Amino acid sequence: MRTQVAIVGAGPAGLLLAHLLDRAGVESVIVETRSRVYVEARIRAGILERSTVDLLREVGLGERLDREGDQHRGIHLHWPGERHHLDFVDLVGRGVTVYGQTEVTKDLGRARDAAGQQVVYEVADTALHDLDTEHPFVTYTTDGRSERLDAEVVVGCDGSFGPSRAAVPNPVTWERTYPYSWLGILADVAPSTDELIYAWHPDGFALHSMRSATVSRLYLQVPHSTDVADWSDDRIWSALDARLGLDGWTLRPGPVTEKSVLPMRSFVQQPMRHGRLFLAGDAAHIVPPTGAKGLNLAVADVALLAPALAALLRHKDSGPADAYSDVALRRVWRCTHFSWWMTTMLHATGDQFDAQLQRSQLQWVASSTAGATGLAENYAGLPIGF
Amino acid sequence: MRTQVAIVGAGPAGLLLAHLLDRAGVESVIVETRSRVYVEARIRAGILERSTVDLLREVGLGERLDREGDQHRGIHLHWPGERHHLDFVDLVGRGVTVYGQTEVTKDLGRARDAAGQQVVYEVADTALHDLDTEHPFVTYTTDGRSERLDAEVVVGCDGSFGPSRAAVPNPVTWERTYPYSWLGILADVAPSTDELIYAWHPDGFALHSMRSATVSRLYLQVPHSTDVADWSDDRIWSALDARLGLDGWTLRPGPVTEKSVLPMRSFVQQPMRHGRLFLAGDAAHIVPPTGAKGLNLAVADVALLAPALAALLRHKDSGPADAYSDVALRRVWRCTHFSWWMTTMLHATGDQFDAQLQRSQLQWVASSTAGATGLAENYAGLPIGF
Repeated sequence: MRTQVAIVGAGPAGLLLAHLLDRAGVESVIVETRSRVYVEARIRAGILERSTVDLLREVGLGERLDREGDQHRGIHLHWPGERHHLDFVDLVGRGVTVYGQTEVTKDLGRARDAAGQQVVYEVADTALHDLDTEHPFVTYTTDGRSERLDAEVVVGCDGSFGPSRAAVPNPVTWERTYPYSWLGILADVAPSTDELIYAWHPDGFALHSMRSATVSRLYLQVPHSTDVADWSDDRIWSALDARLGLDGWTLRPGPVTEKSVLPMRSFVQQPMRHGRLFLAGDAAHIVPPTGAKGLNLAVADVALLAPALAALLRHKDSGPADAYSDVALRRVWRCTHFSWWMTTMLHATGDQFDAQLQRSQLQWVASSTAGATGLAENYAGLPIGF
Repeated sequence: MRTQVAIVGAGPAGLLLAHLLDRAGVESVIVETRSRVYVEARIRAGILERSTVDLLREVGLGERLDREGDQHRGIHLHWPGERHHLDFVDLVGRGVTVYGQTEVTKDLGRARDAAGQQVVYEVADTALHDLDTEHPFVTYTTDGRSERLDAEVVVGCDGSFGPSRAAVPNPVTWERTYPYSWLGILADVAPSTDELIYAWHPDGFALHSMRSATVSRLYLQVPHSTDVADWSDDRIWSALDARLGLDGWTLRPGPVTEKSVLPMRSFVQQPMRHGRLFLAGDAAHIVPPTGAKGLNLAVADVALLAPALAALLRHKDSGPADAYSDVALRRVWRCTHFSWWMTTMLHATGDQFDAQLQRSQLQWVASSTAGATGLAENYAGLPIGF
């Protein structure tokens, strides 16, 4: 099989890249190790920055998003006895949209179908070849057959554990593993809050998020080695109640339909290009989920990359492709810092001086316009191409 | 000897407290272990916040300060290849004044002389007694004689190593020792910069400050165990040149007249009161010097404490004295956080991920109005009573 751009990975980064390339007149094929059902059910982020929403609308993917997405003006910052609303719209003129990554992935999948574009799911043994030539190719097996996908460019949208990242020789990498994890749950109960609550508590961080008017998403900071089996529904709701509790406010518990433990990690690999291989999204960088940046960073990467590849392949203009890694990494580091900052401001470390610094920082962010604006401009997101 | 307020320590906190109490009609006596010459020559901070300057002017101590103090609109933030000026006046409507702590101490000493107030220098064996009664007293020896100073209130302005802090039973304390020190120098050379330069460098932090038009004050981040004997003048200037260097800018070296190594430490003791003992300044809290907060915090403490003691002793109104610790600690923690933040943003840790976070943070502070304003409002200082 032959195409212009071979995309490895059919998560939001790969699917959106294919969509953007198609609109720019560039042909692509995606190969993905998982099934479509698995990819579309994979629960991840749910907060879209304004620039992400604007892009999805511009490229014809805004219809269901506009109908079903929930507009949030900001977030609540909470610590024992106090809850403060930060109104991002007032502070920086833009809020965020709550719309699950599962929904974005489904919309993108349907757009691929409508365009008659090919996504080869459930491939195995994916390998990348001849990346420093102008004729790179990808091999894989599907239904027991070996296949070869010839291309002019390969894009790795296959996350931290896919083969693309590893195909870059001698990269510079940075990594930090945080000394705690999140226990995340989905519950069949209406959210007890209009907008997300980020809660600092001596027992550990808690986050009240939501998926819809009837489904709540909540998280608890837990130790690294946590086994979900040790966390009964009762124990979870009781811990959430302790960490999120406030006089005059009630946390509504409900049936827990999913429990999982998420590691907290920062990772950056540089450069995001090697020859005719480009990396986008989690293949190049991982952020802890506290800043809600993972999906938005992936979207920002492909929003830069698609026109750069169109320039390269259609107009033989290599300028934007040559600039891609440096330009993308500016935003990557901004978001990596912001995600680290939100994470370290909100998670208990067991150190009492840290706890006092965190409380003082939170108090300042909640009471100073500059402090609140700093959080808001990062959380609500920077323009594409920042 | 009998007085209303026995003040332990004749640094800026103790001297200013005596001055403010005198103006409020409250009598005080200061005892100090060091000589006047030593106290007035002790080199410390040199950056005065607006609220500190306003207070000194209001109480008749602004004359030489206004004549000799140097008005700075902001600071320079520097990292390899880039230097950015943050204009605090534009950002938050107030700058800072460069006027050495030595000069403040001399002005305060002269004001004590003019008011005919007693400062007993070179005392030994200072001890505090009966602090939980209304008749506390301080004992000490001077010229080999044992003396007793009876008072209604004792105020500890005697720093982290004086007897006052230790006289509070069962305090809560927080401490952090940073894994680096500063090598500070005074040099007989005109400053090479109009305003302070805070420099991030992979080798470590550097700061270009100044004392006057002909005396520069510079600092280098060095390891904890540094011996000044290992740092020749040449080595110092060469390290400063590497860390502060910028195309088109020249660092002028000159004769080094003083070298010392300063530890970097955060410390807070709570509460700042026990019975009839009150703590102010370094006796209750130490900040690393990166945020230029130590002297300003001491001034803010006594600016709160003086009227509180006047209300207590002259009008039998204990409300402000009872509120003193909580009100003072709000500012203490804000400044403790800010000093920690400046310190950890600017000092090399040897960790490459930290270095990237620091660079990203600095870039953001220098390029975002919210980021710059957040630094400016903390550095230029909060109003007294915040």
